[in-house]
Amino acid sequence: MDLLNLQNPVFATYAIAATIMILKAVAMSWLTVYRMVKANAGFRSPEDLKRTALNPNPDPKQLEPNEYVDRIRRIQLNDMENLPYFLVAGLLYVMTLPPLWLAQVLLYGYVVSRLLHFLAYFTARTHDTRAILWTIGSLILIFITCRALIGALGYLGTA
Amino acid sequence: MDLLNLQNPVFATYAIAATIMILKAVAMSWLTVYRMVKANAGFRSPEDLKRTALNPNPDPKQLEPNEYVDRIRRIQLNDMENLPYFLVAGLLYVMTLPPLWLAQVLLYGYVVSRLLHFLAYFTARTHDTRAILWTIGSLILIFITCRALIGALGYLGTA
Amino acid sequence: MDLLNLQNPVFATYAIAATIMILKAVAMSWLTVYRMVKANAGFRSPEDLKRTALNPNPDPKQLEPNEYVDRIRRIQLNDMENLPYFLVAGLLYVMTLPPLWLAQVLLYGYVVSRLLHFLAYFTARTHDTRAILWTIGSLILIFITCRALIGALGYLGTA
Repeated sequence: MDLLNLQNPVFATYAIAATIMILKAVAMSWLTVYRMVKANAGFRSPEDLKRTALNPNPDPKQLEPNEYVDRIRRIQLNDMENLPYFLVAGLLYVMTLPPLWLAQVLLYGYVVSRLLHFLAYFTARTHDTRAILWTIGSLILIFITCRALIGALGYLGTA
Repeated sequence: MDLLNLQNPVFATYAIAATIMILKAVAMSWLTVYRMVKANAGFRSPEDLKRTALNPNPDPKQLEPNEYVDRIRRIQLNDMENLPYFLVAGLLYVMTLPPLWLAQVLLYGYVVSRLLHFLAYFTARTHDTRAILWTIGSLILIFITCRALIGALGYLGTA
Repeated sequence: MDLLNLQNPVFATYAIAATIMILKAVAMSWLTVYRMVKANAGFRSPEDLKRTALNPNPDPKQLEPNEYVDRIRRIQLNDMENLPYFLVAGLLYVMTLPPLWLAQVLLYGYVVSRLLHFLAYFTARTHDTRAILWTIGSLILIFITCRALIGALGYLGTA
């Protein structure tokens, strides 16, 4: 049976959730660029102080930490700690033939939890709010990963 | 031939190795949370100093670097530098139809090397011990990636 | 139709691009190790100051930030912000049955843009040069991700 195909609605669900998460992650890079340009600060490399078309008036202060830019970098780091694992776990979860409704609840639920986590972080809500939203996503990730592991162990037993 | 299926024992081997690595990586996030709560320190964002149910007595010292927490963050960063690449390289390696025993040695060997690397880092063994364990995993990763690259180049030649 | 197979030239193209990117990413780890050994500096953990075979004359200065080593770490971080997402987006893009020439232009184009980005960063070219090369890769990544998302949404409509 060929499960990794867009004709499989569970795989299509995974593909939608995965691509939205990738676009979200890439958006963090662009948001970092936007804020670096707007603040004209938050640079990181010594050569970023060379006079160029994009930086006509370099200043050593441009290399100092900049909270306006660093907030996005922290959000991006949180993505890197979570999304790559979700992207692979979701694919392996598809192989376990879950019911479509459950796959939708879990995979789209993960996407929603991460988008809300971004909003909470972006608008500097309390640590508690952020923690709750992160926890929901992390528990979904743990569930689909365990399900895939159990599925793989089961097939190994019958091989 | 449909290789990406749990009925293929090499793919099931990959799925087991991959899901264990994902669970290990996610555990680092939870271990960071555990140590932040236990130390009541190692926070990163200005808003984490707001008075909340989880942080009833905020203190600016909570934003200072905290080695007890940062050790786990360094382990997590090392995971991020390695595991996402293993997760994809392992999948592509499955397509090269390796013998099952070799796939088991390489993929489970990688898992064991990373778990031992975690133990060495967690218990602050010497840099030498950590380096040897990291090297074993990295060499396995390079091997399966090169094998997949050669396999793909071979098929391209016959297409 | 089984698309995820090396007999599918579009998948073989993806596999070649993906494995080259993984080898590039792993090379950053080895380059960091090489520079740490050469500079005998840029270490990060307190236990790295223990006297060992690889570090016979430990010195607290070895834990200070070291630009020679940190340059590679910044390049590696940039990889981590980009490559894991490309590796999954490329796989999903294969499912959309793109023409082979277009897949080759996009996937190999991404690889070339990232290798040039590495060269620009490694040799400390201006921020502008680096930004242009990063932008090319990021736009390719956004394009293939959107294409995969639209493809998945289309199949969902017909299911």
